[in-house]
Amino acid sequence: MARYRLILEYDGGPFVGWQRQANGSSVQEAIETAVARFCSETVRVQCAGRTDAGVHALGQVAHLDLAKDWPAETVRDAINHHLKPLPVAVLTASRVEPTFDARHSAIGRAYRYRILCRRPPLALERGRAWHVTDPLDWRAMHDAAQTLIGKHDFTSFRAAECQANSPIRTLDRLDVGGEPVPPDGWALWVIAEARSFLHHQVRNLVGTLALVGRGKWPVERVRQVLDARDRSAAGPTAPPQGLYLTSVDYGDAD
Amino acid sequence: MARYRLILEYDGGPFVGWQRQANGSSVQEAIETAVARFCSETVRVQCAGRTDAGVHALGQVAHLDLAKDWPAETVRDAINHHLKPLPVAVLTASRVEPTFDARHSAIGRAYRYRILCRRPPLALERGRAWHVTDPLDWRAMHDAAQTLIGKHDFTSFRAAECQANSPIRTLDRLDVGGEPVPPDGWALWVIAEARSFLHHQVRNLVGTLALVGRGKWPVERVRQVLDARDRSAAGPTAPPQGLYLTSVDYGDAD
Repeated sequence: MARYRLILEYDGGPFVGWQRQANGSSVQEAIETAVARFCSETVRVQCAGRTDAGVHALGQVAHLDLAKDWPAETVRDAINHHLKPLPVAVLTASRVEPTFDARHSAIGRAYRYRILCRRPPLALERGRAWHVTDPLDWRAMHDAAQTLIGKHDFTSFRAAECQANSPIRTLDRLDVGGEPVPPDGWALWVIAEARSFLHHQVRNLVGTLALVGRGKWPVERVRQVLDARDRSAAGPTAPPQGLYLTSVDYGDAD
Repeated sequence: MARYRLILEYDGGPFVGWQRQANGSSVQEAIETAVARFCSETVRVQCAGRTDAGVHALGQVAHLDLAKDWPAETVRDAINHHLKPLPVAVLTASRVEPTFDARHSAIGRAYRYRILCRRPPLALERGRAWHVTDPLDWRAMHDAAQTLIGKHDFTSFRAAECQANSPIRTLDRLDVGGEPVPPDGWALWVIAEARSFLHHQVRNLVGTLALVGRGKWPVERVRQVLDARDRSAAGPTAPPQGLYLTSVDYGDAD
């Protein structure tokens, strides 16, 4: 038996999310089907971060076991061949020890959230960013974000359906930046890094910070929302299409 | 009568190009149809750079005349409303003098060309970049590009069907850059600026520079190709989906 670690890119738009579901096609099913077409093996692919419907990945990581010991490049190219025409690509495949687990071996996850602020609709980034028609003060959002860094009970930013045992998480980074997009738009990004996140945590953080960016909430209120440990105290969940799982850290050089 | 200048963004993928054609839907027709739905006027929209099928725009400029003098914001919002669900957006609309002509008043045009170098197929940037599976030496491409700057006969880089009276153009800028894209890809961009370009000129320049980037041609050969004044001396035409019309300069502050 050989275990492989895959780094994956995908457009989350056409999928019900990472995980297999009865009501539509998932990224997981797409990869498992491609593997079956390649080598006739029925595998279960496990990932580091189960992305929701519409959420994209630039560097999702997954692992799978194959009975036969194929060269890693063959696994990458064969899965890519059989994934066509779906917008999913295996960027790299590598042989790993059988103790490697994409989910449990991960020591860090990084997400990026993209917001485009302008009145006109999005043509080129439709489905790839959150379209906000109000201007957002990204500096105020960044200041508010800094009050959330560290180890906290993130109940206020946790989806009702979250299955994690504990709402305690350590947020290592939550940076907000912005740049003008000619002729009169603004692009904002939020970078979030932690060992792991609660369900909808990044999108709930972004939706709450956007209230600060719009000037509806003062910077200080975000910390008060955290301390309330009450989901109803926070802002709405930002839409999925702005969210990208950018990388997963295993503490190694790969 | 009121003349309006529009700045437009579009995804060129679903269109036969800017110009009306019998064999499919064009960006021009999309906008003219939206104007007719908005105010029941039959207009002819003129643009600064007639993009080919699959070519995108971040800052195309066009002008049109309306019998009624609407507020510019109304024109922008109404056209955007009636363009739905097509991936075309009016970023800004402004009232201009009747002497303004999107094509003939332009004193500069800027294009950007995006290349993604990696073996796996593109998932998130499919239709938005040229996918090249070989690594490209962007520094060699940049060096070769510098030998083309200035006023020259660009016959070698001109499409057979080009309708311009003269093959003489002044290339003000042709810069090539690159940056790594984790885990093991490279993104390259080419920025081209001139008062005007010949048909397919940017794509022919990029296709030729790519031969240098692949190491098939020495840097010096590109200048020899220019001097040959022979289309068959140059490289192939790079595909349309990597090309973006980024901005048009009218020598004003807008």
